[in-house]
Amino acid sequence: MQVNFAERADNHNWKLDPIVRSLLDTDFYKLLMLQFIWKNFPQVHVTSEIVNRTKSVKLADQVSVGALVDQMEHVRGLKFRRSELVWLAGNTFYGTRSIFEPGFLDWLEHDFKLSEYEVSEQDGELLIRFSGLWCEVMMWEVYALSLVNEMRTRSALGQLSELELDVLYARAKTRLWDKIELLRAVPAVRVSDFGTRRRHSFLWQEYTVKAMQVSLGPSFTGTSNTFLAYKHDLEAIGTNAHELPMALAALADTDEELRAAQYRVLELWQKSYGGSLLILLPDTFGTTQFLTGAPDWVADWTGQRIDSKDPFVAGDEYIAWLMKRGRDPRKKLLIASDGLDVAEILRLHAYFTGRIRFSAGWGTLLTNDFRDCHPRNETVLDPISLVCKLMTVNGRPAVKLSDNPRKATGPSEEIARYRRVFGSELQERAVVV
Amino acid sequence: MQVNFAERADNHNWKLDPIVRSLLDTDFYKLLMLQFIWKNFPQVHVTSEIVNRTKSVKLADQVSVGALVDQMEHVRGLKFRRSELVWLAGNTFYGTRSIFEPGFLDWLEHDFKLSEYEVSEQDGELLIRFSGLWCEVMMWEVYALSLVNEMRTRSALGQLSELELDVLYARAKTRLWDKIELLRAVPAVRVSDFGTRRRHSFLWQEYTVKAMQVSLGPSFTGTSNTFLAYKHDLEAIGTNAHELPMALAALADTDEELRAAQYRVLELWQKSYGGSLLILLPDTFGTTQFLTGAPDWVADWTGQRIDSKDPFVAGDEYIAWLMKRGRDPRKKLLIASDGLDVAEILRLHAYFTGRIRFSAGWGTLLTNDFRDCHPRNETVLDPISLVCKLMTVNGRPAVKLSDNPRKATGPSEEIARYRRVFGSELQERAVVV
Repeated sequence: MQVNFAERADNHNWKLDPIVRSLLDTDFYKLLMLQFIWKNFPQVHVTSEIVNRTKSVKLADQVSVGALVDQMEHVRGLKFRRSELVWLAGNTFYGTRSIFEPGFLDWLEHDFKLSEYEVSEQDGELLIRFSGLWCEVMMWEVYALSLVNEMRTRSALGQLSELELDVLYARAKTRLWDKIELLRAVPAVRVSDFGTRRRHSFLWQEYTVKAMQVSLGPSFTGTSNTFLAYKHDLEAIGTNAHELPMALAALADTDEELRAAQYRVLELWQKSYGGSLLILLPDTFGTTQFLTGAPDWVADWTGQRIDSKDPFVAGDEYIAWLMKRGRDPRKKLLIASDGLDVAEILRLHAYFTGRIRFSAGWGTLLTNDFRDCHPRNETVLDPISLVCKLMTVNGRPAVKLSDNPRKATGPSEEIARYRRVFGSELQERAVVV
Repeated sequence: MQVNFAERADNHNWKLDPIVRSLLDTDFYKLLMLQFIWKNFPQVHVTSEIVNRTKSVKLADQVSVGALVDQMEHVRGLKFRRSELVWLAGNTFYGTRSIFEPGFLDWLEHDFKLSEYEVSEQDGELLIRFSGLWCEVMMWEVYALSLVNEMRTRSALGQLSELELDVLYARAKTRLWDKIELLRAVPAVRVSDFGTRRRHSFLWQEYTVKAMQVSLGPSFTGTSNTFLAYKHDLEAIGTNAHELPMALAALADTDEELRAAQYRVLELWQKSYGGSLLILLPDTFGTTQFLTGAPDWVADWTGQRIDSKDPFVAGDEYIAWLMKRGRDPRKKLLIASDGLDVAEILRLHAYFTGRIRFSAGWGTLLTNDFRDCHPRNETVLDPISLVCKLMTVNGRPAVKLSDNPRKATGPSEEIARYRRVFGSELQERAVVV
């Protein structure tokens, strides 16, 4: 039996076991949006904060402020590596080369940094706030969410014996493989990994992604995690998120500018990106008003991502809208990404087959489904709903309405104003009734 | 990243990956019986052979003669290690110290060897035959069965990718833990590992045993595997097997001696062993005739192991017999060991609670339950029914009737003679009707 003395000694020398080890370990859309912000809004100042929507879980019970700050400082000390930048410059994303401009890559290499932040504890909850230039704050979202989630995981794993850990992962793997077998039975289904921010851990996300890569063939279309795409030659998936219309809306000076902000984002976006990157995310202030009021060129975009509306309803609505605007839905793409699991993915695939191209962005229940896997039947490893909210933009409050009233964010008087401007007051009432 | 150059090179230097690595890697009752044979029948000559009762599986498709011979030669080259012999001498078995005599341990150390054997292939089956002194042949049984089973396992594993192997073991572990959780819910249940000969592999048996050791507390009473008992400070479990009455019956010169042989074994046994080692195995020539014809002192033995009769029926029969003989069944032990799984273990425990002490010897479905675990849904890892039969004793045929007609072994004319002598012809007819 060989003993590697140097390795054993080194294992005792670790100061920190870093969670995020590369700045590419983030959602690909963050990089697309970062270039967009760097180009169009380099001087905008924002604040954002982490919000735990799962009130039954008190984060500070599982995650210590000091340990979190150590992990955050580690991320802040990272630089984009030379080979990572070369890959961003030379790789083909969505069939297009040179999506990232040389000037942006040069800025990433030399000038990019993560903003200041505050972490504190209050009534058992963690307060995690970021403030600074938008292009210094926005990248924190995925890093911070991954950190907090994996620190929760580590805290729970620390209570388990070696054998219990083995049981835990055997159960989670068995669950994962049962899911993959269901997907394999439907070769036309299309699924990608959207689970970075809610993952159990980096290594578990990598395991789930490799499992799909090896066993699903063309049904697995890629991962939102840029580092995993880079490491495993996968397609990097993702386009844009709510923070863009939220910020542009906050910057609007009049109600008219506010209403127009959601389309102004698209105008600017299509100056930088084309093809498959032209994916609408219409629910920031309500999907129905967005589609109804959209200029005709919006119907030329490649597809739509559904994030907060019932995806069957939202898909039907999008198809009807496309037909009314004289576009062929069968050439468009519909992406669902809100709390999906295999059964719903397969139902949606069957429902939309032949009507529109459907693709599922599989998140939490791909990379963090440890429900009922705990060897002592505890719930400490169940995923929680943790988000990072844009709070202010140049000092003004940021608002999201979304199609799900429970997902609305912002000061209540601002939410009321937005609902009035976007005409979604009535819709909300309809939903509640 | 540290590279252990010596270890990597050494991993490429292996000539053989041995399956059986210690002569203690056998059922404990083999050692008890070996001492019994060494003492009482040192000159008896026997032959035995491996029989595959699962006709749908052709062993030679999965196990090559050459590779099997390499493994068998490895076992034949093993010696009892000093520390193993010290443990056999100094350890307490079933509460008794010095169960093994110094003379026997001295013989084990210096003179014990495994007999000659033949391995060949015929119509896709393996022919594996042993011949020599009984005390040189009898130890082959468990080594050879373990070898063939693990070589089948290796052959099946060789068809799987790394990820598929991971799925396979995740599923098997999940299954094992589901079983253990069911046992944990009934703290009074008593279970031991009887799965050496039918195991998936040595390491998997060790995993299942450690899993029970860690999680079942006093419900897990020990293992039949002597090496695992030695390595993990467990109780070594087991007493005796059919080969003893079979051999003594074969040596009988008259029908009267034949009928008496099954009790003659017990007389000799209790000269060497006492207490918990006095466990009847009454089914060799039919349980009912055994109990009916037994001398009264047989009812003083500590318990009974049921191997081929419905354990509910056999337990009831034993309890009624004990009461008729004026013994308190609640002080006796009932051990079931034939094809058990958790559901039946729990049913038997419930059925006998308060009436007799019940303990389950859990075999194949503990150490080799990979049914439905194969990642491509193949059945190559399903366990098969492989046994080692005593064929002749000093040139005379060996016979077993058992309570299950399908388990009868021996030439058909001899089986008929034994049935006549033991009066179990009528019983057989009753079973068939």
